[in-house]
Amino acid sequence: MNNIQVLILLIILMEIYHTIRNQFDKSSIIFEHILFLISTMFCGFLPGYCSTFPTDYTLEESGTKNTLEFRIYFAYKNEFISPVHDIPILHNETSDIYNMIVEIPRWSNAKMEMNMVEPLNPIKQDVKNGKLRFVHNLYPFHGYPWNYGALPQTWETPLGGDSLKGDNDPIDVIEIGRKKHEMGDIIQVKVLGALGLVDDGEMDWKVIAIDVTDPLAKKLEDVSDLSKLGNVVPTYFKWFKYYKYADNKKINRFISNELLNKTETLKVIDDTHNHWKSLISKTGDINNRNCYHTIRKPGTHDSCLISSREANAIVMNNKVMSLFTGSEGNAIIPTEDYLFHLNID
Amino acid sequence: MNNIQVLILLIILMEIYHTIRNQFDKSSIIFEHILFLISTMFCGFLPGYCSTFPTDYTLEESGTKNTLEFRIYFAYKNEFISPVHDIPILHNETSDIYNMIVEIPRWSNAKMEMNMVEPLNPIKQDVKNGKLRFVHNLYPFHGYPWNYGALPQTWETPLGGDSLKGDNDPIDVIEIGRKKHEMGDIIQVKVLGALGLVDDGEMDWKVIAIDVTDPLAKKLEDVSDLSKLGNVVPTYFKWFKYYKYADNKKINRFISNELLNKTETLKVIDDTHNHWKSLISKTGDINNRNCYHTIRKPGTHDSCLISSREANAIVMNNKVMSLFTGSEGNAIIPTEDYLFHLNID
Repeated sequence: MNNIQVLILLIILMEIYHTIRNQFDKSSIIFEHILFLISTMFCGFLPGYCSTFPTDYTLEESGTKNTLEFRIYFAYKNEFISPVHDIPILHNETSDIYNMIVEIPRWSNAKMEMNMVEPLNPIKQDVKNGKLRFVHNLYPFHGYPWNYGALPQTWETPLGGDSLKGDNDPIDVIEIGRKKHEMGDIIQVKVLGALGLVDDGEMDWKVIAIDVTDPLAKKLEDVSDLSKLGNVVPTYFKWFKYYKYADNKKINRFISNELLNKTETLKVIDDTHNHWKSLISKTGDINNRNCYHTIRKPGTHDSCLISSREANAIVMNNKVMSLFTGSEGNAIIPTEDYLFHLNID
Repeated sequence: MNNIQVLILLIILMEIYHTIRNQFDKSSIIFEHILFLISTMFCGFLPGYCSTFPTDYTLEESGTKNTLEFRIYFAYKNEFISPVHDIPILHNETSDIYNMIVEIPRWSNAKMEMNMVEPLNPIKQDVKNGKLRFVHNLYPFHGYPWNYGALPQTWETPLGGDSLKGDNDPIDVIEIGRKKHEMGDIIQVKVLGALGLVDDGEMDWKVIAIDVTDPLAKKLEDVSDLSKLGNVVPTYFKWFKYYKYADNKKINRFISNELLNKTETLKVIDDTHNHWKSLISKTGDINNRNCYHTIRKPGTHDSCLISSREANAIVMNNKVMSLFTGSEGNAIIPTEDYLFHLNID
C-alpha cells in the first residue's frame, strides 16, 4: 500500500469510528467491541502497524516520543495488562525480591511515569501547565543519576489517616546499580532503605534499591551498607532537594535527614501494598485512580476487571487517536543538553 | 556506480598506491604528489565520498567512530589545516578571549584528542594497550562532566627546565558552561584559572574556562567567582583524582590543592604558547611531535610548512586506508552504559 492508500483507509476508518462513537455511550461495552473490530481491520490491512508479542512481558508503544500522545502499554503473554495492577509486587512469593518497573533510564531527563488516571496505566510523560516535563541537569548530575521507577501493586494513598497524605501514585524507587535500564524494563531489586521526600505537603517515599543481578547487590543489605559505595547518601538528598529548583525555585523538604532502614522501608512498602488492595477492591474512595486490569486476583472488584478484548480496544483506540492528533509539531524541545548550576549549596 | 564497480576501482587504486609506495620513500614529496593525484581520481569517480566545505572552519571525518581508524580533520576555507598549529590561540589579538578546540563533549566517555604524532593532528581516540580508551562513569558523574578540549598553539613541553616535565600535548581545558558542545567545535572561552594535575610525574594543567556566549560568563572573572556556581571546585578535584581508578586503581595527585588564579593561569598558557613556537620553528628537539601545518606564520620552520596539495594527500591517504583496514569488527564495545561506584571517598 502506498501512502495515499493508507491515508484514504484511515479516513474511512475514522469516519466509521466517529459514526459509531456518536451512536453509543463511550464507555459502553458494545462501543468497545466495535472499536475492537475496527482495530482488528486496521491491523489486518496494515500489519506493519501492529506488533506481535514473542516473550512473556512485552511493550507496545503508541505515538511519538516527547509528544503529549506518547504511551507505553504493557502486555503479558500477548494480552494487555496494567503494569500497576497486574505485575506482582514480589518477584517470588517466598523471597524479598521485588519487581520494579523502570520509568526513567539513568541519565535521561523526560519525567515518564505510569499514569494512574488512564485505563491500563501506560507509561506517559508527565505534563505540567500543558508542557511535557523534563528535569534539568543539575551539576554535577546528568538528568536522573539512577534508574528511576516504581513498585507495582502499591499506592501512596492520599486518603489514609497518616499525618501526611500520600502523593496518590505507586511508591517510587531509585535503582542504584551499574547498568542503565530502559524505559518499561521490569527488573528484580533488593530493597535497602528509603528517603522521605515531602512534596507540597504530600508524602512521597523514594525507595532505594539495587538490581539483584548487580555485582554489588550481594554486598548491600541495608542503608548502612551504602557507605561501601562512598559518600553517596548526601548526593541522594541533594538531588531530590534541588531537582525542581531550576524550574520554579522550589526546594524540597524531607520527613527526616536520615534514611529509613530496610525493616522500616519494608513496612512502608507493605502499607502501600495494602492501600493498593483497597484500590482494586474498591473498599474505599479510589480518588480518581484507574483500577482497570486484566488478570483476576483475590479481592478484585468486578468493575475493575476487564477482558482482553476491552484492553485491546483501549490500546488500539489510543494508537488510532495518536495517528491523528500526534505530530512532531506537538513535541516540546527538551532542555536535555543544558546544564544548570546551583548558586546555593 | 554499483558496489562491485566501487570495489574493483578501489582494488585498482590500491594496486597503483602500493606499487608507487614501493618505488618511493614514504616521506618524499613526489610520493605525496602522486598520492594526491590518486586521491583526486578517487574523488572524481566517487564524488559522494569527498565532501565540500561551505563555511570557514569545517570538519572532515574519516573512518567509523569508536574504531582505531576514526579521525576528524580540520579545514579552513576549503584547505586542510592542523588544528593545533593553524588555529590561533587568541580569538582576537587585542582581547583575552581564547579559542578552544572541543575534543570530548560533556557526558561522553570516549577519550578523544588531537593527535600530536600524525600529520595535521586529527582528533582520534586515544589507545592504551591496543584498546580504545573510554573513561568510566564515576558516580555521581556521567562521563566527562564538562566539555573537554585544548587550546591550540600550545605545547606542554617535556623538555623545559621546569621542576616537572610537561605531558607533551597542547594544554587541556575544561569548559564549564551550560551548553553541550560537539567534537571538533571551535569555541571562544574566557580563562578563569587552572588545576595542576600531576600524571605519572608529568605536569598536566587543566585550564578552567567558560564559553563567552554562556549567560554566566559575565559573572565569572577569576577562580574566586566559581563559588557563585555552588561548591563546584571539590568536584573538579574529585573527578581528576579518581577518573582512572576504575581502570587501574590509579589515584592522581595535584601540584597543589588550590587552583591557579587567572593571572597565574595566563602566565602558564603564555609559557606553553612559547614552547609551541619553539616546536614549529624547530629551535629545539620537537620530541616526536608533528609540526606540519599549512598556514604560514612568523618563525615557521620550512620543513613544517606543507602545501594544501600535500595536506589533501595526507587526508585522502587516511580515508582510503580506513576503507580497507577500518571495520565495525575493530570497534571495541564501550562501557558507556555502566556506572562505577568508588568505595573510597
